[in-house]
Amino acid sequence: MTERARIARIAELLGGGGEGVDVGIGDDAAVLSAPPGGKLVWTVDEQVEGVHFRREWLSWRDLGWRSFMAAASDLGAMGATPWCALSALVLPPDVDDAALEQLVEGQRAATQEVGAPIVGGNLSRGPVVSIATTLLGTCERAVTRSGARVGDGLWLAGRLGFAAAGLGALASGRGGDLRLVDAVAAWRSPRALVAEGNALRSLANACVDVSDGLACDVGHLAEASGVAVVLDEAALRGQPGLGEAAAALGRDELDLVLHGGEDYALVVASPAAIPGFRPIGACRAGRGVVLRSASGERGVEPRGFDHFQWPRLPP
Amino acid sequence: MTERARIARIAELLGGGGEGVDVGIGDDAAVLSAPPGGKLVWTVDEQVEGVHFRREWLSWRDLGWRSFMAAASDLGAMGATPWCALSALVLPPDVDDAALEQLVEGQRAATQEVGAPIVGGNLSRGPVVSIATTLLGTCERAVTRSGARVGDGLWLAGRLGFAAAGLGALASGRGGDLRLVDAVAAWRSPRALVAEGNALRSLANACVDVSDGLACDVGHLAEASGVAVVLDEAALRGQPGLGEAAAALGRDELDLVLHGGEDYALVVASPAAIPGFRPIGACRAGRGVVLRSASGERGVEPRGFDHFQWPRLPP
Repeated sequence: MTERARIARIAELLGGGGEGVDVGIGDDAAVLSAPPGGKLVWTVDEQVEGVHFRREWLSWRDLGWRSFMAAASDLGAMGATPWCALSALVLPPDVDDAALEQLVEGQRAATQEVGAPIVGGNLSRGPVVSIATTLLGTCERAVTRSGARVGDGLWLAGRLGFAAAGLGALASGRGGDLRLVDAVAAWRSPRALVAEGNALRSLANACVDVSDGLACDVGHLAEASGVAVVLDEAALRGQPGLGEAAAALGRDELDLVLHGGEDYALVVASPAAIPGFRPIGACRAGRGVVLRSASGERGVEPRGFDHFQWPRLPP
Repeated sequence: MTERARIARIAELLGGGGEGVDVGIGDDAAVLSAPPGGKLVWTVDEQVEGVHFRREWLSWRDLGWRSFMAAASDLGAMGATPWCALSALVLPPDVDDAALEQLVEGQRAATQEVGAPIVGGNLSRGPVVSIATTLLGTCERAVTRSGARVGDGLWLAGRLGFAAAGLGALASGRGGDLRLVDAVAAWRSPRALVAEGNALRSLANACVDVSDGLACDVGHLAEASGVAVVLDEAALRGQPGLGEAAAALGRDELDLVLHGGEDYALVVASPAAIPGFRPIGACRAGRGVVLRSASGERGVEPRGFDHFQWPRLPP
């Protein structure tokens, strides 16, 4: 299939239009009717083969789904409503038309879940698969990382540590272990917490999504806001099934919770409870991230994924 | 340098802000104040090492510049004014901090030329360098590919064939040939015709930028508009210096003009002359692309770059 034929097929699979979309796939650029007032929230995320995934660890459909959700999660973390997306695909010659269709089908399913159609993109050859997803969202007020105040509670929506356990299972060839099936699904099919993000925007002072690990991401929130974050260890333990998964991997449960990324949970600093979020700590004067347990407090250093310090995937 | 330190350094190099930019680099997403009324025009372009360029063919600064201009050209072709951009970089471990700084410096220079700051992005490891640039622009009325009418003149701004000659020179190790220096510069440092694009929007019925080759891109315009495009061979010949460059490469000049991409010229269908554009043909009833010369007419098949048909770069 030629590039042009592939683009036509992708456009067909993705369907057309969406609110405010004047021109979609197929022209030099997409054309949108700017929303009346409000803010635009804009993000890009890229998933690269060999860095974020290996082909044998997930289906093409999963890959399309999770690459879209990873980008959508950033909008959730700003309290924004996803509006529309662009998708830039890099595909090696050995990705055949059937694989591309499944990838696009996964993207399409994610766009429908999130409520933001893909309205354009780019297609290129390359040595490995790469998917750069750009998303535009709208909101009245964006929730940044920098608004947390001393005295705010810290609230969590979603799970922590499961995706990292799933990645560990796949990387060690134990994806079929029944104790790890849920974790593998968490890594393969994350869900951006867009509705939860919408719920928080009138109440929250600050928010981050947990893409690189709780300690790392709340560390960003703490630093940007000029506060210290105290995490309550008891509140972080006991997620159903994570203990078993950790045991199956020979990993520490709390370590997975603190440092495992890609679950795309949301962490919010807010003076009041938020529907759908549970308390996991608080903000106080100081800096950094502290873990509080019955036996006292200890500092937690970020150990999330940093591409420029170590490779994510096992060699 | 850690990923976080690199992002901080990139943010420092790029400078902050821009009109309507509430939150720039460093949060989960950028936040923009939606322009009052009008249209948003939105595009993404990706440049991949080994597909669109080889490192030895250009400086890191050139790479940053040309990757940005390739995306900006799409906005020019819609008659849009660039507003702001996101940059998703994939960098192998052997791209050091100095190289990254030069790449970002090239991007920054392009953002200033075009008038659209980079307000966010993504940083990832990968096996080859890749730069995905997403650009938002604004306009009152977007000029698409599909509005050309029978009887419209066809008008050109910019040069054709030079970038392809420059690529040919670099690929064959003749970048130092004095007859090819101008062509090499055209490939390394293209300029998106944003001002020209702004000039056309009140008059033009349709527009495309020439990224894949004139025959290919006006073929898209013809198809989308349901017209035939007649190109005037005499108007396409005689660009100063192209004949010499073609001779130095042993290539046919007209072949470079018709099928060479990446000059990012603009081609417009319009009933009236447009300042800064010169006439190169017309639209008539029918379909496809026709070349008209003193000796008659012949059809021109697109032979621009198609990633999915053949590789752009010599093996």
